[in-house]
Amino acid sequence: MDFFIDPIGKLINEFSKLPGVGQKTAQRYAYRIVSMSEAEAKEFADAVVDCKKRVKYCKICGNFTEEEICDICSSGRPRSTICVVKEPKDVIAMEKMREYRGVYHVLHGVLSPLEGIGPDDIRVKELLNRVNEGGVDEVIMATNPDVEGDATAMYISRLLTPLGVKVTRLAHGMPVGGEIEYTDEVTLAQALKDRKPI
Amino acid sequence: MDFFIDPIGKLINEFSKLPGVGQKTAQRYAYRIVSMSEAEAKEFADAVVDCKKRVKYCKICGNFTEEEICDICSSGRPRSTICVVKEPKDVIAMEKMREYRGVYHVLHGVLSPLEGIGPDDIRVKELLNRVNEGGVDEVIMATNPDVEGDATAMYISRLLTPLGVKVTRLAHGMPVGGEIEYTDEVTLAQALKDRKPI
Repeated sequence: MDFFIDPIGKLINEFSKLPGVGQKTAQRYAYRIVSMSEAEAKEFADAVVDCKKRVKYCKICGNFTEEEICDICSSGRPRSTICVVKEPKDVIAMEKMREYRGVYHVLHGVLSPLEGIGPDDIRVKELLNRVNEGGVDEVIMATNPDVEGDATAMYISRLLTPLGVKVTRLAHGMPVGGEIEYTDEVTLAQALKDRKPI
Repeated sequence: MDFFIDPIGKLINEFSKLPGVGQKTAQRYAYRIVSMSEAEAKEFADAVVDCKKRVKYCKICGNFTEEEICDICSSGRPRSTICVVKEPKDVIAMEKMREYRGVYHVLHGVLSPLEGIGPDDIRVKELLNRVNEGGVDEVIMATNPDVEGDATAMYISRLLTPLGVKVTRLAHGMPVGGEIEYTDEVTLAQALKDRKPI
């Protein structure tokens, strides 16, 4: 870092903390900040602090919110269907599709024995409480289709099924617009197994 | 942007202003900020403001500095050789190679008729003044080896040669169309060694 004067070196160091940002990219970002007007840089910095200060997690579902309760939970959407996701950003992905009209539950993580993340480290208890309060017909497990996401979905379904609630999982299959040639064997096998009448 | 609550949307917008950052990348960065501690986010924001506030340009050479005069100009390095570059970041690239011991002159741009950038828009006059003050034996043109960089080097060499100063150009040991900032040290060292009169 000794080629950079102190304030630039520090900023490069901060930018390096962002996901996927290495030294070179952090340098480019820092140079961009230097070439901004003072007002622009201030606006940038304020957005960072503001975001951290104003963004909280919904007391009910764990989604991003500025209030106690998020927009989705406080809307009139039916609470009989809960879609369970790993992160708040997954809620945004689901909402962008504009097909789902139920509510969410954000786990803030998935079970990972290797990383020492157990059921008490993610929001499983909160989900059980919501189901126990009644009025829930279906819980859709929308964790990622990987080992940890699958294990988490399986674990939660075993807890919820005895409570008389239907637990479902997002379908596995070929991505729309994908090509058979480039689809991995496991996905293709799943797509074949779950084939449907046309 | 309507899927994001206001402070996240704003921060995504700010991150999108960084070079090469699109919507998806800006989202990832914003999520990272949200998951930081408040102290970390504060530190990040402070580094941005601080960098913009503390970084100035050297009165002599135009390089980044926190003082009136940059570290290189105020060091005892011989002023008889001036290396002319486009941007302050190019000074850092040159310094990293650890081969050059003269001083610099940062143009803060290159001639570009298409973008309406003429000699008065970049620090050409300041370079002429430095040469006119005397004591300069050689000016090394280290603008990027592209059309605008070559044209700028040619223009400046025509101004300086009548003043009895030797004007050289970094050798084309570097890939044509490349950028000084991203050239590895070995190639850059070779290009410096093979510099030729224009």
